[in-house]
Amino acid sequence: MDPLRVAFLGPTASFSHQAAVESFRPEAELFPRVSFADAFAAVQEEKVDYAIIPCENSTNGSVVQTLDLLADPNCLYRDVTVCGEYYLTVHHCLLTRQGLFPPGQRDYSSITKLYTHPQAWGQCEGFLEKMFKGVERQDVSSTSKGAEIVSKERVEQSAAIASRFAANYHGLDIAEENIEDKANNTTRFLVFQNIKSECAGRVPFEDINVSTAQGRTQTTPATQKTLISFMIRQDCPGALADALLIFKDCGMNLTSINTRPSQIIAWKYVFLVEGQSVPTGQNKDTVSKIMGGLERVTEGCRHLGTWSDRSVPL
Amino acid sequence: MDPLRVAFLGPTASFSHQAAVESFRPEAELFPRVSFADAFAAVQEEKVDYAIIPCENSTNGSVVQTLDLLADPNCLYRDVTVCGEYYLTVHHCLLTRQGLFPPGQRDYSSITKLYTHPQAWGQCEGFLEKMFKGVERQDVSSTSKGAEIVSKERVEQSAAIASRFAANYHGLDIAEENIEDKANNTTRFLVFQNIKSECAGRVPFEDINVSTAQGRTQTTPATQKTLISFMIRQDCPGALADALLIFKDCGMNLTSINTRPSQIIAWKYVFLVEGQSVPTGQNKDTVSKIMGGLERVTEGCRHLGTWSDRSVPL
Repeated sequence: MDPLRVAFLGPTASFSHQAAVESFRPEAELFPRVSFADAFAAVQEEKVDYAIIPCENSTNGSVVQTLDLLADPNCLYRDVTVCGEYYLTVHHCLLTRQGLFPPGQRDYSSITKLYTHPQAWGQCEGFLEKMFKGVERQDVSSTSKGAEIVSKERVEQSAAIASRFAANYHGLDIAEENIEDKANNTTRFLVFQNIKSECAGRVPFEDINVSTAQGRTQTTPATQKTLISFMIRQDCPGALADALLIFKDCGMNLTSINTRPSQIIAWKYVFLVEGQSVPTGQNKDTVSKIMGGLERVTEGCRHLGTWSDRSVPL
Repeated sequence: MDPLRVAFLGPTASFSHQAAVESFRPEAELFPRVSFADAFAAVQEEKVDYAIIPCENSTNGSVVQTLDLLADPNCLYRDVTVCGEYYLTVHHCLLTRQGLFPPGQRDYSSITKLYTHPQAWGQCEGFLEKMFKGVERQDVSSTSKGAEIVSKERVEQSAAIASRFAANYHGLDIAEENIEDKANNTTRFLVFQNIKSECAGRVPFEDINVSTAQGRTQTTPATQKTLISFMIRQDCPGALADALLIFKDCGMNLTSINTRPSQIIAWKYVFLVEGQSVPTGQNKDTVSKIMGGLERVTEGCRHLGTWSDRSVPL
């Protein structure tokens, strides 16, 4: 059997790369994609078997690029479907060139410049205020890029804020670990596949995924998540409430609703609705019942996928 | 009577500044605020009577900074309420230093550099591809900032992409007008006031606002919009659907639902729900009925304001 081909949102050593490594068996071939749209296109064109992309962060909320690709106003990705999810807790480290400091030394006064992604400065404010007050900060396009820059320096004494994964990838020392202000800042990734691909029929994502094999889902209830999108006719008052009521009537618990511009008419929206249900013998056709109901009161409704809930129980 | 004090999202000559000028009588005193939070704080602390801030764009969707301030997890802005809205169609112009080109000349080959906000490049791709292929582009923090830079140049031949309003403010020539790809790209601004302020009791925003005085709302139905926020207990399946059903049962038409992280517990959300209703003698207490219902099934629900619908009828 050929190894699985998996696209992730690049560059290499990004949090998406880490999520891909942790989600798939080691023999999978991983390919960085420079944009969200490139990763979606790779799945649509069957250049890869799967793509893994961030969709939501517990602090910053939804990733609109992913929502807009799911909303798909021009029907570019009609065969792309969600088949799984992966939660990654975001830990930041202070990374320095190999051997720059002896282990245990915590005097960083010789460091004159710091590199990271703009969002990471805000996530490590406490640490930076205490240890690097007044030190020059250089924004870079990703935390991994900052690590790469520091790894290539020969003379300067600079540091990057990035993950342990990026440290290992770029061969840097981890001077400090878990320097983030918030302990449980977590990103949810969605795993996509092509509904027509051989893989989709062969085995479900859960049976391919390493984390499952290691038994994580054994401890969580067998809840399934479902994502459905639709638009509302603007001349139909009450249609949004009617559409949402269908989920309830069919026994699906609404958990999240995102609204994105349809890009067709100004102020016409695509609603992306996520719900949970526990599959039983009786409710096998929940999704098809919901879709039947939505087809009567909404426009362009699409079932974007059903997959196993991997969130940690509260 | 003292002139009204109005905060807008700065810098000067920004689209928010233009929205403030077009929304309030000329005698109002306008104050730029450097951040969304500063503008909210100015209203909460009664340093200004009103603030006007973008909340949504017809192409890019919701402005999350505004949603997060409305969600207000730390109760910093408990007296800030929405009292109005204003729609501004976004038109971009190519602006050059006064007298650089004779009127009507459309040969821009001497221009070596363009300035604008990153979002504006994407909104003028067609024009730029045709007229400025390969010319250096410099990102700036706002379209207005780009106009300011060009206005101060003495030797360089550069141009900015910004509004007609910014051209007038910074004294630049409008070389080309309406260079945006999409004709109807519109931003919706919300107007905020302090519920405890004298102004709030004195006269409603609609009676202060110039546009209304000029009769725009005469032609639109007397629809009101209402914004309400709430959280859902994570251990209550079905609670979100129950909450949304209350709007329907009380006769309010749901028009938009936004979801933001609560910042209290990971994956607990604040839902920001907007609805429309036409006030009649019979439904004066619609909002208080909805709030009464929500208090039973949600947590921390807040009525964030009710104001006159200014959207143009479809």
